[in-house]
Amino acid sequence: MFRRRKPPETVAAVDLGSNSFHMIVARVRDGDVHMLDRLRESVRLASGLDNRGFISPEAVTRALGCLQQFGQRVRDLPLGSVRAVGTNTLRKARNAEEFLELATRALGHPIEVIGGREEARLIYLGVAHSLADDGGRRLVVDIGGGSTELILGERFEPSHTESLHMGCVSMGRLYFPKGIITETAWRAAEIGARLELQPIEETYRRVGWQEALGASGTLLAVDRIMREQGWTREGITLEGLHLLRQTLIKAGDMAKVELKGLSDERRPVLPGGVVVLISVFEALGIGQMRVSDGALREGLVYDLLGRISHEDVRTRTIDGLMKRFQVEPDHARRVEQTALQLLEQVGDSWQLDQDHGDTLGWAARLHELGLSISHSQFHKHGAYMVENADLSGFTLEGQRRIALLVRAHRRKFPVKLFDDLPILERRPLLRLAVLLRLAVLLHRSRTDTVPALEGLKAKDQGLKLRFAPGWLEANPLTRADLERESGHLKAAHFKLKVE
Amino acid sequence: MFRRRKPPETVAAVDLGSNSFHMIVARVRDGDVHMLDRLRESVRLASGLDNRGFISPEAVTRALGCLQQFGQRVRDLPLGSVRAVGTNTLRKARNAEEFLELATRALGHPIEVIGGREEARLIYLGVAHSLADDGGRRLVVDIGGGSTELILGERFEPSHTESLHMGCVSMGRLYFPKGIITETAWRAAEIGARLELQPIEETYRRVGWQEALGASGTLLAVDRIMREQGWTREGITLEGLHLLRQTLIKAGDMAKVELKGLSDERRPVLPGGVVVLISVFEALGIGQMRVSDGALREGLVYDLLGRISHEDVRTRTIDGLMKRFQVEPDHARRVEQTALQLLEQVGDSWQLDQDHGDTLGWAARLHELGLSISHSQFHKHGAYMVENADLSGFTLEGQRRIALLVRAHRRKFPVKLFDDLPILERRPLLRLAVLLRLAVLLHRSRTDTVPALEGLKAKDQGLKLRFAPGWLEANPLTRADLERESGHLKAAHFKLKVE
Repeated sequence: MFRRRKPPETVAAVDLGSNSFHMIVARVRDGDVHMLDRLRESVRLASGLDNRGFISPEAVTRALGCLQQFGQRVRDLPLGSVRAVGTNTLRKARNAEEFLELATRALGHPIEVIGGREEARLIYLGVAHSLADDGGRRLVVDIGGGSTELILGERFEPSHTESLHMGCVSMGRLYFPKGIITETAWRAAEIGARLELQPIEETYRRVGWQEALGASGTLLAVDRIMREQGWTREGITLEGLHLLRQTLIKAGDMAKVELKGLSDERRPVLPGGVVVLISVFEALGIGQMRVSDGALREGLVYDLLGRISHEDVRTRTIDGLMKRFQVEPDHARRVEQTALQLLEQVGDSWQLDQDHGDTLGWAARLHELGLSISHSQFHKHGAYMVENADLSGFTLEGQRRIALLVRAHRRKFPVKLFDDLPILERRPLLRLAVLLRLAVLLHRSRTDTVPALEGLKAKDQGLKLRFAPGWLEANPLTRADLERESGHLKAAHFKLKVE
Repeated sequence: MFRRRKPPETVAAVDLGSNSFHMIVARVRDGDVHMLDRLRESVRLASGLDNRGFISPEAVTRALGCLQQFGQRVRDLPLGSVRAVGTNTLRKARNAEEFLELATRALGHPIEVIGGREEARLIYLGVAHSLADDGGRRLVVDIGGGSTELILGERFEPSHTESLHMGCVSMGRLYFPKGIITETAWRAAEIGARLELQPIEETYRRVGWQEALGASGTLLAVDRIMREQGWTREGITLEGLHLLRQTLIKAGDMAKVELKGLSDERRPVLPGGVVVLISVFEALGIGQMRVSDGALREGLVYDLLGRISHEDVRTRTIDGLMKRFQVEPDHARRVEQTALQLLEQVGDSWQLDQDHGDTLGWAARLHELGLSISHSQFHKHGAYMVENADLSGFTLEGQRRIALLVRAHRRKFPVKLFDDLPILERRPLLRLAVLLRLAVLLHRSRTDTVPALEGLKAKDQGLKLRFAPGWLEANPLTRADLERESGHLKAAHFKLKVE
């Protein structure tokens, strides 16, 4: 048996947003979740992006300071019980990789970057868990620093997830530099936001919803202003937003704006957020919106708990992908089973754990994905698809790992791609790739018959296979195939020995 | 109206195979096809590939000489009535592009390279037309110089098309250098061939067939040897093949082989072909195989006639692709209609013809193909899919043209990709891209309402749009969208003017 994770009692989620960083620590007992701590720091990572797309040294310093503080609280939690994710700014920044290395060390836990749809899904999950379930369809809107997520769903199931490339920080930088607001700029900003919304308007309106909900900073701030100004009795209304717009334009300069409930931290990014919010209201025909306490970080906690209790959304995602692209399920299952059986035998000596097993299993299920495009070079097509698809539950890194295994599952071994990996990832992924290749090879006949493999012995950079006596002689095709495979793996300095 | 093609009376097909070049000239009258001429030249393009993958100067000289001869016969036929295609060697050769430029000039007609599946489809078409239709399912096998095609189908419809990377020239070079044949080498060659066949064996056997048919050089040559040696009464049999293998191994050297019916041209490539043929027989359990006169070149003629009489297989291919990847058909149709209406208005001044119209229409139908992978960057995913898919009826160049239009249909204009095109293609494709972008823009709301576009005027490097008076003022979103579009096109030195 390879190493399995124990379910942790305390878990934490860290959200490295484009405007603020958040952390929550939660305790789980008998399936109940209690939030222990909530921390928030205004890091303004997106404002720290210079015009070449690099995070500025000042922003890096702010971010690392914040993560060190967070780290003090969670450093002693076991690996696997803290999920930390970066969003839009870290998807875009050209020095994201360097930053993430420092950031991971500051926090003491791995930080991963998630795609827009995955962000949207997690936000929905966070909001859904913060509400009593009324069974109706919901629209959830989250305006972040660099992106805006719009999700339709029922209960805990999102049905439509979209992430648009505009947020309170990016819109403000574009249309209201230094906080100066003119009527012309405001109109241009709203048209810009409407153009972003246009492709999804028709679908969202058609599907419809019973209740509109807002999450995160911009929405909470606007809600508070509305209430303290006395512009609304409950929730955010379109009339209230029009009053807010009028107030901002009239002041002409964010430094001069006087509004009850407006914090100093929110002040510089308010107008960009309000532009997006008004545009969402008008494009989708929203009259009123309630705000929710739940957000990305709560979603992360519930997602982590789901994984631990085996309600792993990733399994469903992979199954959906297989259906959508008509992967032959019998063959995928065959290869997956054999790959995981091989892993059981060598997992301990190769120090592979359950996460590796998950990755191997998913790659096995998807190894023929690219056939939907073309037979020729289908391993490359499948890798392209996995790497670029919006996969619920997966981080971008997680997708890349599966894509690499799919890419490497047949033909020449892509040594160069493995050489480019960080040293700590290279070795386990190369081993997983060898196991997947072997499982595929053993099922080359596409039948349920499994060759009589009697033993498997893992070496540091090698693998020894023992077949039942006489079996290989009776199956010269498999023997020739294994010989060719041994040649392929030599390129990766991996020694495949057959007895 | 933009220019439409007149149906030609005489058509020709040229097949630039890896071993021989073939040409047939046919006359069409009232739907009947009469073959007027058949020419064949042993060019041995594949043997001319050096170990870095370049076609050697000697092989280029042989090929150009042959094409000049062919060219004398078809030079005066109107453009569009000659289809010339290259296959495996030209798919692989690293100097294929340079060669094709010279070759096109020698022939006087454009030469295109087709993918393996398209080759398989055309071979099936050629064979199917050469037979009385008995309604049963057929297996067609064609062993070329560099690839082997295996097709299952009924009547004129192939249901399974496969192209494997082995042929009589490539197998011979690998296992029987200089024509020396040993028993060990032969066994290794058969195992190598069986490994190539293994992935398709199970499916082909399961689907099954009533009759096995062989096409092209290797098959015709083996059939002739069998008959003249008296090894068979009709067709090629497994027993006959075993006798042939025994004879070749016993001789040990192709120079010493004595076989009735073996031509000097066939002699050097016979053993590679026989290895593949025996392996196909054994892998698929074939007992006997009849040979057919029809082959790739006949398929090309019937395909060309189908296009002219509007039974264009390409339309079906595109529809199949849309279904497979769940493209929203209503929106695709909308955008296609508008794009073609725009083309009607500017086609003449921009010198665009029916082929351009086809390309534009197909690109419009497929422009949202990439959404099946992910919304983000879906124009890039769609382009990847079109470029890499096995599209029946399309040449690789044809696929690349559609892929480029899909790639360029939204966001920044990919100027660099157009700059890389040959000068003669750049201008029409850029114009088609502008029309597709405009059609997509005009339907951004995804409804059937078309903006009140009253006039369209084509300039050399520009386009002038006139809307109904007051319409743009009432639709500031479209106006802003057009302004942004005008900015995008500036990068390609294209001027979009709106009135």
